[in-house]
Amino acid sequence: MTSFMKPISFASDNNSEVIPEVLEAIESVNTGQVAAYGNDSFTDEVRSSFKRAFGDSATTFLVFNGTAANILCLKALLKSYEGVICAESSHLNHDECGAPEHIIGTKLLTLPSPNGKLQAKDISTKMVRLGDPHCIQPRVVSITQPTEYGTIYSIQEMKDIKAECVKYGLKLHIDGSRLVNAATALGVSLKEITSDIGADAVSFGGTKNGLLLAEACVFFDKQIAKHVPFYQKQLLQLPGKSRFIAAQFQTFLKDETWRRYSQNSIERAREIHELVKSHPNVEITQNPDTNMVFAKIPRDLIHYLREKYFFYIWNEKTNEVRWVTSWSTTSKDVQDFAKALQRR
Amino acid sequence: MTSFMKPISFASDNNSEVIPEVLEAIESVNTGQVAAYGNDSFTDEVRSSFKRAFGDSATTFLVFNGTAANILCLKALLKSYEGVICAESSHLNHDECGAPEHIIGTKLLTLPSPNGKLQAKDISTKMVRLGDPHCIQPRVVSITQPTEYGTIYSIQEMKDIKAECVKYGLKLHIDGSRLVNAATALGVSLKEITSDIGADAVSFGGTKNGLLLAEACVFFDKQIAKHVPFYQKQLLQLPGKSRFIAAQFQTFLKDETWRRYSQNSIERAREIHELVKSHPNVEITQNPDTNMVFAKIPRDLIHYLREKYFFYIWNEKTNEVRWVTSWSTTSKDVQDFAKALQRR
Amino acid sequence: MTSFMKPISFASDNNSEVIPEVLEAIESVNTGQVAAYGNDSFTDEVRSSFKRAFGDSATTFLVFNGTAANILCLKALLKSYEGVICAESSHLNHDECGAPEHIIGTKLLTLPSPNGKLQAKDISTKMVRLGDPHCIQPRVVSITQPTEYGTIYSIQEMKDIKAECVKYGLKLHIDGSRLVNAATALGVSLKEITSDIGADAVSFGGTKNGLLLAEACVFFDKQIAKHVPFYQKQLLQLPGKSRFIAAQFQTFLKDETWRRYSQNSIERAREIHELVKSHPNVEITQNPDTNMVFAKIPRDLIHYLREKYFFYIWNEKTNEVRWVTSWSTTSKDVQDFAKALQRR
Amino acid sequence: MTSFMKPISFASDNNSEVIPEVLEAIESVNTGQVAAYGNDSFTDEVRSSFKRAFGDSATTFLVFNGTAANILCLKALLKSYEGVICAESSHLNHDECGAPEHIIGTKLLTLPSPNGKLQAKDISTKMVRLGDPHCIQPRVVSITQPTEYGTIYSIQEMKDIKAECVKYGLKLHIDGSRLVNAATALGVSLKEITSDIGADAVSFGGTKNGLLLAEACVFFDKQIAKHVPFYQKQLLQLPGKSRFIAAQFQTFLKDETWRRYSQNSIERAREIHELVKSHPNVEITQNPDTNMVFAKIPRDLIHYLREKYFFYIWNEKTNEVRWVTSWSTTSKDVQDFAKALQRR
Repeated sequence: MTSFMKPISFASDNNSEVIPEVLEAIESVNTGQVAAYGNDSFTDEVRSSFKRAFGDSATTFLVFNGTAANILCLKALLKSYEGVICAESSHLNHDECGAPEHIIGTKLLTLPSPNGKLQAKDISTKMVRLGDPHCIQPRVVSITQPTEYGTIYSIQEMKDIKAECVKYGLKLHIDGSRLVNAATALGVSLKEITSDIGADAVSFGGTKNGLLLAEACVFFDKQIAKHVPFYQKQLLQLPGKSRFIAAQFQTFLKDETWRRYSQNSIERAREIHELVKSHPNVEITQNPDTNMVFAKIPRDLIHYLREKYFFYIWNEKTNEVRWVTSWSTTSKDVQDFAKALQRR
Repeated sequence: MTSFMKPISFASDNNSEVIPEVLEAIESVNTGQVAAYGNDSFTDEVRSSFKRAFGDSATTFLVFNGTAANILCLKALLKSYEGVICAESSHLNHDECGAPEHIIGTKLLTLPSPNGKLQAKDISTKMVRLGDPHCIQPRVVSITQPTEYGTIYSIQEMKDIKAECVKYGLKLHIDGSRLVNAATALGVSLKEITSDIGADAVSFGGTKNGLLLAEACVFFDKQIAKHVPFYQKQLLQLPGKSRFIAAQFQTFLKDETWRRYSQNSIERAREIHELVKSHPNVEITQNPDTNMVFAKIPRDLIHYLREKYFFYIWNEKTNEVRWVTSWSTTSKDVQDFAKALQRR
Repeated sequence: MTSFMKPISFASDNNSEVIPEVLEAIESVNTGQVAAYGNDSFTDEVRSSFKRAFGDSATTFLVFNGTAANILCLKALLKSYEGVICAESSHLNHDECGAPEHIIGTKLLTLPSPNGKLQAKDISTKMVRLGDPHCIQPRVVSITQPTEYGTIYSIQEMKDIKAECVKYGLKLHIDGSRLVNAATALGVSLKEITSDIGADAVSFGGTKNGLLLAEACVFFDKQIAKHVPFYQKQLLQLPGKSRFIAAQFQTFLKDETWRRYSQNSIERAREIHELVKSHPNVEITQNPDTNMVFAKIPRDLIHYLREKYFFYIWNEKTNEVRWVTSWSTTSKDVQDFAKALQRR
Repeated sequence: MTSFMKPISFASDNNSEVIPEVLEAIESVNTGQVAAYGNDSFTDEVRSSFKRAFGDSATTFLVFNGTAANILCLKALLKSYEGVICAESSHLNHDECGAPEHIIGTKLLTLPSPNGKLQAKDISTKMVRLGDPHCIQPRVVSITQPTEYGTIYSIQEMKDIKAECVKYGLKLHIDGSRLVNAATALGVSLKEITSDIGADAVSFGGTKNGLLLAEACVFFDKQIAKHVPFYQKQLLQLPGKSRFIAAQFQTFLKDETWRRYSQNSIERAREIHELVKSHPNVEITQNPDTNMVFAKIPRDLIHYLREKYFFYIWNEKTNEVRWVTSWSTTSKDVQDFAKALQRR
């Protein structure tokens, strides 16, 4: 059952270490007694940092993991008869063990997403049977930025999706478990890809990007946000010792620390791409926009590489694999990996 | 809204710092990439440590907070038409924002609990209308050890409750967010107050006892435990970087580290009790079995003390207050506090 | 498992026949094809009849049974972190197999109710920890009129409860599975004990009062009612052939047909009361305000009577029994029953 | 909002009258008091009738509507982390306002179904990530017989699906809101297309086939069925005056009354098909296996026909319409309709 790690992994950024200055930040707040459940000055300060990063209208709640961040955001945006338009390939749809359906009781209305992205033009196809009580009523569009395939929505694509949301009275949620990678790749601020676009709620990820255990839900409408403290507790997401999550984000957001580490993730993925793309046995299947490279490679090459490196086979039938880099991946790791691949 | 802390707090052990060697343990596992979601050697090792501490039949799942531990334990024990017999004063009933009802969809069948404890003899009063489809069917007895009032069930009291469970075919759950304090106070091992009693599931707390953020669900029946990985994910409780929770428990369980720190919590509470119990303005209301002292004191004394110390008024009408100590409370803290009280 | 009926039953008005003119009404609408799901002229007409009976602000939804009527009413009034203040003895709390908790995910905040009624003055005891995210927030007061003990709230008592609701920002729900009995006993119209009092939602019962299978949810606020069609479908309560439920209520509401039949139920219960109250072995335990008589009688008398008549033992420990009359109970039934009782 | 019916409708069999002998059966049981909630001899007898019709292993529960029958069947077969494989076009997926997701908390795993039928060979495509806690685990295959397009699974197709279920340890549910039409069209008994195939649960419909308001859940495994009484109550589906639903089914099942009326539905649909299939403006889009004809016709012809007849436009974009017949559709109705169509 238990599978242990090879020394070097391209399996997931979830496998990475914690950024040392984040650990230091945790230690630095381990001073005396402070109020629990977010009523402490550290959590208060990080809420202000979120306002600086995401815009003044941001109200932030610290939670435990990425699935929970998505579920809490959506819970606050939905009535029980309202559904979520999302990409077929989304984490919401495939990787949360039915939490959207079971914990919120909502229905996902999925759109085709060959490159991980839902298309603005497809949203209207779900705007049917409006007002018909026999049918779930669409209420939220949820996009993953960057997507599960590492691809990114351009600012224009996000604006086009928001325009459809406005047209149909839909709310916009961003699953941003790796949002920093999108901001870095696009060269924009966090505000520019969230509140400036008109997002209503954002799941802002820390864990996959070098934090220890830290995710956040950011809301931009006070009328919605005022109910969230209750949902946060009821959905098992109110941290007792909140300061230790706050400290992680404080360091992450300060001077855009995240951008520096995210930059490394992206550069290492591009380095993999550069080194392997011309190899005759490698067929790149997705744009390496952020920290992932998807490729089809022969089955025996998969086996050979997996003896030394851990990574996932994305599609057993097509021999498509996924290579993920992280803040701690080194150029040497990448070059050794590419050499191993090229040797065959 | 935000309330900040006075330097010294007797409000909650949730306000305390993290034990330094626990922080060191976290740092010590921050080495290279390891598999996520509990498929790593650190998590594997801590599962073995739990077996040593709780008995060979223990299967352990690491979760984020105490409410979640309770909910995940009960979820695994219940069908949707089955209810939970618990003390009226329990955390389940009062402090989880309806999570048992909303997340599991169960009903709590509460018993009177003047000292925080439900009485074995009262369980039968809930064993009515068995087989009647109009009525929730009792299925689990959940006790808090130590209770929300800091009192403890003796080993005999636990056995008596278990005997009723056996008689009526009920499962036994222990909400042990401060279980270490009960084990320390009773001078027994964790196994002696869980599996030896016949508990079916235990919420084992770390956060209130000096860990950073770490709780565990311990099950003793493999047929029940086999479903838990799915419930854990669906109920938003599967940690990505599991090793950092595992490391905390590894240190906590090793050589019963918990007992040393728990001992301090208990001794400091008894010290408070000794110092204030004879004061004419102080009426002790509960046995100070573990790390809490409950007392009725005059309203103006409450105000005076709260200028220097943070603590909760438990009952606004009766002027009952709660003083909680923790692993880091010092004898000097207690003596200063007692002096402040006695000065009035 | 299956228990069959003695010829004469005082067990429940649910055991009664259907009023013949109600059956005729069902037959009378069995003419040709009409739109399903309530989009037919019969359902439309009955909605108008409800407006005439309950007031112009009434919006009505036809549902299948009484538990469902309660659940649909409360679903529309509550967010998931909001609770319901109700009598400890309420049907909601005891007889719905946890549907409030499981289907809505709400928590019931029960008040003592020795005579089936919650007291206006007790409501404030539940208005604690407001704004505290750890705690369910009270949102609705639900009263049963008449109560599970057959007792009734006077108009003044209802107004006093409403005043507390206004004071605390609570909604008022009336579980009126036998509301017609209360209106008849009080000599008022349905409007006078619902919208005139300021009720926000009413479960209006038909089945126990002589209809075949017909219950209704009546709302008085269009902003709330506009969501109900979706909840009605999602909660499994949208009748396909709605006309056959509509026809039952049409007859029931026309010229207050209900009052005539309800009058009989009440008179027969009072007749029982008159005939047995002075019997040395009978201790009446509740005011026989409507169609129920509660009494403590010796165990052997219970056994003797149950050989000829079916009725429930309400409390096995105290030998309290419940005798329920219905629209079809005759004076002869009652007198024979009283004679049987007196013979012992 | 309210739409009223044209005299003749081909919109839905839900619009039809009640079969006269069913109304007579309802009247015939309106005799004196009988126990409520299914504890009466009429309900007991109909349970035996179901055993005769569906096989000795059948345990039957009477419920209110078709959505509820599906939800109750699936509730009894699923844990919260288990999903349902069904046709993309199924009622479960499109027409229950998210009840499967909201009331059960399950996830639907949909398969393409151009003619309404899921293909046995496609089931394996959903048997992925088994044992992976991040992913809903498939547990039930639900088929609609006949389908939402009026097409039927042959006995062999059902057996092939069952074989896949056996292979993968899946349960088989049949949504049979019009099951009588499938049995009639295939010339088999109800047993032959349910228990003989190996179905685990069947939603057996009455309302669309001429009953007033009557659906049933039939289970074939006592270990599953024993929990259903509680789910039935909790899911708002326990009828108080059960005898009036029992009486409908008693008449329906007696001497296969259903077959006679179902025969008419099917013959009338085939008559429509025969009369219009060669019309140059009519393109038949589905096999008229039972009581539905699907066709693409010009938009102006749709408008012309809808002035006289009510029916649904199935697909606004392709001008596909659905014509449904019922037990009460006459040959004259059909011929008049065909003439009206041919006149254009």
